[in-house]
Amino acid sequence: MHFSIVALIGRYEDSGMDAPLRELASVLTQANIKVIIEKDTAKNTGVREYHTGSLEQIGQIADLAIVMGGDGTMLGAARTLCKYAIPLLGINHGRLGFITDIPVHDSINAVKAVLEGKFTIEKRSLLEGSVIRDRKVLTTDLALNDIVLNRSGRGGMIEISVDYDGAYMYSQRTDGLIVSTPTGSTAYALSANGPIIHPMVDAFLLVPVAPQTLSHRPIAVPSSGTLTLTLSNVSRAGSGASVHFDMQTWSDLQAGDKIMIKKASHKVQFLHPVGYSYFSTLRKKLHWNIMPNDENSIK
Amino acid sequence: MHFSIVALIGRYEDSGMDAPLRELASVLTQANIKVIIEKDTAKNTGVREYHTGSLEQIGQIADLAIVMGGDGTMLGAARTLCKYAIPLLGINHGRLGFITDIPVHDSINAVKAVLEGKFTIEKRSLLEGSVIRDRKVLTTDLALNDIVLNRSGRGGMIEISVDYDGAYMYSQRTDGLIVSTPTGSTAYALSANGPIIHPMVDAFLLVPVAPQTLSHRPIAVPSSGTLTLTLSNVSRAGSGASVHFDMQTWSDLQAGDKIMIKKASHKVQFLHPVGYSYFSTLRKKLHWNIMPNDENSIK
Amino acid sequence: MHFSIVALIGRYEDSGMDAPLRELASVLTQANIKVIIEKDTAKNTGVREYHTGSLEQIGQIADLAIVMGGDGTMLGAARTLCKYAIPLLGINHGRLGFITDIPVHDSINAVKAVLEGKFTIEKRSLLEGSVIRDRKVLTTDLALNDIVLNRSGRGGMIEISVDYDGAYMYSQRTDGLIVSTPTGSTAYALSANGPIIHPMVDAFLLVPVAPQTLSHRPIAVPSSGTLTLTLSNVSRAGSGASVHFDMQTWSDLQAGDKIMIKKASHKVQFLHPVGYSYFSTLRKKLHWNIMPNDENSIK
Amino acid sequence: MHFSIVALIGRYEDSGMDAPLRELASVLTQANIKVIIEKDTAKNTGVREYHTGSLEQIGQIADLAIVMGGDGTMLGAARTLCKYAIPLLGINHGRLGFITDIPVHDSINAVKAVLEGKFTIEKRSLLEGSVIRDRKVLTTDLALNDIVLNRSGRGGMIEISVDYDGAYMYSQRTDGLIVSTPTGSTAYALSANGPIIHPMVDAFLLVPVAPQTLSHRPIAVPSSGTLTLTLSNVSRAGSGASVHFDMQTWSDLQAGDKIMIKKASHKVQFLHPVGYSYFSTLRKKLHWNIMPNDENSIK
Repeated sequence: MHFSIVALIGRYEDSGMDAPLRELASVLTQANIKVIIEKDTAKNTGVREYHTGSLEQIGQIADLAIVMGGDGTMLGAARTLCKYAIPLLGINHGRLGFITDIPVHDSINAVKAVLEGKFTIEKRSLLEGSVIRDRKVLTTDLALNDIVLNRSGRGGMIEISVDYDGAYMYSQRTDGLIVSTPTGSTAYALSANGPIIHPMVDAFLLVPVAPQTLSHRPIAVPSSGTLTLTLSNVSRAGSGASVHFDMQTWSDLQAGDKIMIKKASHKVQFLHPVGYSYFSTLRKKLHWNIMPNDENSIK
Repeated sequence: MHFSIVALIGRYEDSGMDAPLRELASVLTQANIKVIIEKDTAKNTGVREYHTGSLEQIGQIADLAIVMGGDGTMLGAARTLCKYAIPLLGINHGRLGFITDIPVHDSINAVKAVLEGKFTIEKRSLLEGSVIRDRKVLTTDLALNDIVLNRSGRGGMIEISVDYDGAYMYSQRTDGLIVSTPTGSTAYALSANGPIIHPMVDAFLLVPVAPQTLSHRPIAVPSSGTLTLTLSNVSRAGSGASVHFDMQTWSDLQAGDKIMIKKASHKVQFLHPVGYSYFSTLRKKLHWNIMPNDENSIK
Repeated sequence: MHFSIVALIGRYEDSGMDAPLRELASVLTQANIKVIIEKDTAKNTGVREYHTGSLEQIGQIADLAIVMGGDGTMLGAARTLCKYAIPLLGINHGRLGFITDIPVHDSINAVKAVLEGKFTIEKRSLLEGSVIRDRKVLTTDLALNDIVLNRSGRGGMIEISVDYDGAYMYSQRTDGLIVSTPTGSTAYALSANGPIIHPMVDAFLLVPVAPQTLSHRPIAVPSSGTLTLTLSNVSRAGSGASVHFDMQTWSDLQAGDKIMIKKASHKVQFLHPVGYSYFSTLRKKLHWNIMPNDENSIK
Repeated sequence: MHFSIVALIGRYEDSGMDAPLRELASVLTQANIKVIIEKDTAKNTGVREYHTGSLEQIGQIADLAIVMGGDGTMLGAARTLCKYAIPLLGINHGRLGFITDIPVHDSINAVKAVLEGKFTIEKRSLLEGSVIRDRKVLTTDLALNDIVLNRSGRGGMIEISVDYDGAYMYSQRTDGLIVSTPTGSTAYALSANGPIIHPMVDAFLLVPVAPQTLSHRPIAVPSSGTLTLTLSNVSRAGSGASVHFDMQTWSDLQAGDKIMIKKASHKVQFLHPVGYSYFSTLRKKLHWNIMPNDENSIK
């Protein structure tokens, strides 16, 4: 894999990103690599001395996209770029992210190593969700983390009925239902008490948010099937519901609307430095299983 | 798939099993099928008018094994028979089971339908776990539900360190750690607050029992890898630890022992009646998401 | 305790409530008890042949208020009537409620028994919450179940800082935080994975909704203290926050707003039939600890 | 409160405790306070130059007991000394404890401050549990943290039926049931997913360990009542059950045995330095609500 054209994409409205961006662009240029800066990034940072392009243009011509920012920036870039089979490298400008796993202070060395071919590639699945009203598709969107159906109004709650490949699963009165990829299992689904699903497990995860039943449990189903969520009821006049894609785009819903969710036909390709460990990220980000200082007290 | 020789296997020490066993054997005989009764079943029930054989002999010569009892009976039969590629049909003599999904009152009709070729086949993975002490394998056993490492003594607790394909995952002070198949995710792992994993998801599930950290979470990892559990510490003199396979066989452990767990090379084949629904079993067995009568109160 | 004047209060917009209301009013009249119908109830049901009055008037002159509807109806009545030391009797017109514990088909007998003095009295605490902006109290309201601070907009999340009697407890990025009475512990707090707190325990319960940390836990604190919730941050432009009292009234919030919560000076008095069991209601309403049919499978 | 005689109690079999013990004894002697060393502590540490006494003798004559060790040491001392109304001061020789809240490096200053009257007193409730077989009390013991009824054997599980003041609560098939004080809510009960109960809340907490039902929930009940746990069944021949008091003493049980649990007539008195904060200990010990570095990723 050779990288002739590399795109740089930065977090929206992040001040102080111009210096690391310039440094990175300079390193790339010195290595005879052509640099494109994503056009909004160029505008926000004032780094205007390179070619610029939209995400779609980047997808069409670049060989690699380096995303600087947080996981949210990466989610936004990945949802558009996944159609173009372009690999993504995530540099965290701020705190360590799950999918922007290179700290900014390591970025130059990490990028140099990647240019020398020292990296691993990881493919991650996305969800494709369609909103259906009266048998017509209103909108279709992608999500790398999750598609969330939730109540949007004050008070009230919603009732959701779930089918998998045409087989009835369950109905639930709840604040919301999260359908997550393994990538998203460490995002909002985790807050709602979901398990962690390793990115290489071919599954979707369903996690309810504040469901009324005591007997609910998260469930992981094969990603080969299609989930259908029906908004069977909105409990109270005036309280609505909406569906969110990676918490970045959304649609308002009416009772009776259906959301059909399946695996997207494209995958995202993440590049990781050699030595990248998913479990290490879990430990660092989540304080996962870090033991409190209580050797005597708990038992 | 044609069934010329069918084996019947009953629950150990279940009185009142002779009548349904005889009825089933009679139906099979009338269909010109040769019947073998598992030898302990024949002894316990007094149904001695048919050929008998050990589980191993059944595995070698029978085309189908019908298991009458509960999920425990099926677990025991499956762990031995999985080596022989013989399909299993589960009839629940008692309460509905997860893997003995035909109620006894439907058993004659269900068996007739199966003989006519009306069934679906489902393959389920097993775990193979080896206990290693001082670099030597002490014992190796199979589990269809789970391999559980837990403290066995009074008080005290154990410390377990977990690796996946050589990469360090975490260490945990806990009462126990459950490594479960998707099949086992609705068994002991569910009691320990684990998620449900659909049987067709290729994953192992790790669920701790009463871990000391607040920041633990169950995790599902691809079933293609190897888990290594190291019993790094037993907190108190006199309190031991042990490893259990499907809660049916076990080995005592010492500090320093390792348990290596991978996917077994054989799978179990379950036959289900046409119309079988995994989700329906979840709803019936677990009261999964059954709504309490509280439309006014929760919100 | 003698009941000369009894008020009848019905669920808002519940059709089919006129017949049981008339029957109940007739039984009371025959017992020489003066009946007042809450004025909106009279209007909605068309039962206009009795005196009517507002909730405040009822509080001032009635000796007993009988509430027909669901727990929501009772919450609304209790929040107003608690100031007047009038006992409340709850009849569930619909499904069994936690605080409307007499089924409608038993209502006549239950009311007759109460008139004969056969009842127990239970006092339940309410929360009083004040919204403070720039050191000024914007509004103060009561809650029998819970005061909930949550994000109200699309996406985003809020950050809440919590003090108890001036001592810092914790800060949390979350969808919401529920402060609940023991009564409310079986309502929304239960959906958010909170424990059950018996009504006679003098405590408030704090339960987060989808908090970002893995290491959170619900906590119960003595009801003698004052909780201060500070909305320290609203993560995203355009996404707001609001505070809800029993999910019936609410106020919009800005970053920096504080909610001060303490035990209300008044209590609600519930009358229960002799033989009332809190635990029985838990079992019936929540299917609490009802065992699934799985004697063989879980272990 | 004046302290003329102060007892020193150290952790059982903790090497390296002689130096801090001698330093503390010397500080006390210089302040004209008579020192007694608990006799096993004197033997284990070799600090034999002071008077020694049993815990009972200490309870009878000392004005203050200083406990050096971990929470386990304090539990053991408190269970015996609570009968004697002697205040306890906990110094953690090792890692910070919940009830040994003074770090060893602060111990001299903290003790000096206490001698000057700078401290707060906190009273904590204990549980008193009696094992009853065939209507006879076999044994009675105290617990400051918890009384735990659990399966003790291999595999199998137990069935427990619970009453509160004679009213039936629920039956549960489970690995165990923890009845905890508020003090114990941050110990084993927390591992089993229980909530935190502030020490000043007058309640007992019931938390099951790996219960079979999905619809269980921890419950807090007023500490004024009596809990009766009946071991209604032991599921498998050969697997037993036992009851544990603070995980320090235990009794083996048979099916049919009852455990009656009520608030002990004595309380433990803990002295804390001025400025002690229960919530601060929670944060330090549990990493309670410490936010992981994920501002961008979770949502």
